Amino acid sequence: MTDTYLTLNENAQYYECGFSCDNALLVRVGDMVFFITDSRYTLEARQYCTKHTQVIESSDFIQSACDVLKSLHVKTIVFNPNELSLSLYEGLKNKLSDIKCELLAQANFHQKLRVIKSEKEIALIAKSQKLNKKAFKHFGDYISAHLHKKLNEAELHYRATQFLSHFGKYALSFEPIVGINANAAKPHALPSKKCVLAKNDMLLFDAGIKYKRYCSDMTRTAAVHGNNGNINFHKSQKFKNKKHARIYEIVLKAQERAISQARSGMSGREIDALARDVIEKSGYGKYFVHSTGHGVGLDIHELPRISRLSEEIIEDGMVFSIEPGIYLSGEFGVRIEDLVVMKNGRAEIL
Amino acid sequence: MTDTYLTLNENAQYYECGFSCDNALLVRVGDMVFFITDSRYTLEARQYCTKHTQVIESSDFIQSACDVLKSLHVKTIVFNPNELSLSLYEGLKNKLSDIKCELLAQANFHQKLRVIKSEKEIALIAKSQKLNKKAFKHFGDYISAHLHKKLNEAELHYRATQFLSHFGKYALSFEPIVGINANAAKPHALPSKKCVLAKNDMLLFDAGIKYKRYCSDMTRTAAVHGNNGNINFHKSQKFKNKKHARIYEIVLKAQERAISQARSGMSGREIDALARDVIEKSGYGKYFVHSTGHGVGLDIHELPRISRLSEEIIEDGMVFSIEPGIYLSGEFGVRIEDLVVMKNGRAEIL
Repeated sequence: MTDTYLTLNENAQYYECGFSCDNALLVRVGDMVFFITDSRYTLEARQYCTKHTQVIESSDFIQSACDVLKSLHVKTIVFNPNELSLSLYEGLKNKLSDIKCELLAQANFHQKLRVIKSEKEIALIAKSQKLNKKAFKHFGDYISAHLHKKLNEAELHYRATQFLSHFGKYALSFEPIVGINANAAKPHALPSKKCVLAKNDMLLFDAGIKYKRYCSDMTRTAAVHGNNGNINFHKSQKFKNKKHARIYEIVLKAQERAISQARSGMSGREIDALARDVIEKSGYGKYFVHSTGHGVGLDIHELPRISRLSEEIIEDGMVFSIEPGIYLSGEFGVRIEDLVVMKNGRAEIL
Repeated sequence: MTDTYLTLNENAQYYECGFSCDNALLVRVGDMVFFITDSRYTLEARQYCTKHTQVIESSDFIQSACDVLKSLHVKTIVFNPNELSLSLYEGLKNKLSDIKCELLAQANFHQKLRVIKSEKEIALIAKSQKLNKKAFKHFGDYISAHLHKKLNEAELHYRATQFLSHFGKYALSFEPIVGINANAAKPHALPSKKCVLAKNDMLLFDAGIKYKRYCSDMTRTAAVHGNNGNINFHKSQKFKNKKHARIYEIVLKAQERAISQARSGMSGREIDALARDVIEKSGYGKYFVHSTGHGVGLDIHELPRISRLSEEIIEDGMVFSIEPGIYLSGEFGVRIEDLVVMKNGRAEIL
């Protein structure tokens, strides 16, 4: 794995130097890290960057990067072609050709470098997910107590963000998805004001937070119980509607199978198939429109990919989601998602 | 101006077809608009896109774009080299060469196309800023009533987001900046838990919201009054500390001069100079570390640039910020920002 690269990505920068901002270029050459940023951010960068990082104030990042690379006689530097814009790439290439330094494209090299999580990182993701689960609990309790107030999706979304952020303490890892019935059939539904939660409805809730910048991610699909209007986001659910119950059972079986049978050494494709086979055999294969999972860490979507096409080999220390779903357009959708870490060859739920 | 282009940018997509999502490629060929997205988003895209838009479900955007361009015999298509990643550019170039269609780089072409706002857009930005001002008022009242509770920056930040979002009704156009004294000397300060607001402090507050996707943006620097701990975000402020008062006066003079003397036909550079000259003549030129302003619309930062180097000619219908500042490291910072629209040759505050 390379140790000489440049990146604009904030999470990669944070990983390398303990700080990031929305206008910086990080250059790493072996053990040396250079954080090139503009005058708005240099004060904080100097305060928060790790000791081995040199903060460079610059209004011309390309020139500053060149100066660094020239002084260190770097002949090849890696970048992510999915991250660099064509303009920046061409600007860099022109300048670097003057100092005979070559740009080497390696797609998602920094996510690859982070794909095996350290014990410390796993603990941070676990803590993030623990706080996330707490928010699911509080949100469920809130809905149970306020169902009679006719909560619409937009209101549910706002309340969810309050519980998820623990009232401003944590950032969210993505915009939570709150879908009632047919809206849950859109895997990434926008919250609607017209859609009001009622007894016997089905509610899909997909959310995550960041704890010390590490993301969590969980999805539950819950029944609003007819007798008392109660709701909870446990995995075990009871639906009065038989089709709801049937589809939920299939998705749950698929999800639990993938978790219990996933092994280090399998490919992403093989783990995807563990879940997909269950859904296909039940006849709903074409309604499972996305992949089974994705890596989670500093980015909400990182490696490994747990998809039909993924040849990535799963190893101990990888953290990813297992989230099969079935979406019946115009009716309802079910998705169940947990995060797992591979440990001693098996998947352990975080 | 071109009418055949492709874009990944969500705001450009929204402008073209009334909908956007985080995984789509929009292709426009004359009056025809094609919204290429994956199966997670097609249901909503079909529901919300304008009538002249054709939604294409695809797992290979490059191939789908090629199919469209081929069927319409397009020979040249414009893209933004600051937006497209090197990977996507190369993928497109390869495929398009098969059908003899050429990619033409035009930096920020879509922001250029949107730089003159319609009456409708100006009304939306004005409404956005009106709601933003309301939030400033509520936030000031809240601080005045709760100063005795020793509010730290992180708490202030959270409360600010509640008022700005009008309790969940609106999205923010950026993370608000809440800086007390020395923290306000960092133009983009992160909120700290250690920094508590007290009497005679100076508080910098920079925030904006989105109304029907149009951004607002405003900054005020306010005094916490010694006698009763009251605070307001009016432009007229009284500081007990003489240096606070002196610096505030200079920034205010610079800001008001730029607004009153800006004219259509000037360059961005000339308007920048209207503010910068005041600060330079007062001896604080080197502490005004950013440009005087930036365009605002669907993006929080768009054209025109009001900076030292901007040769863009300002015209009626452009909307931009005027926000000079002086930042004294370790002491405090002052910035005052309004949005203006050019109308009948002059700048009118929104």
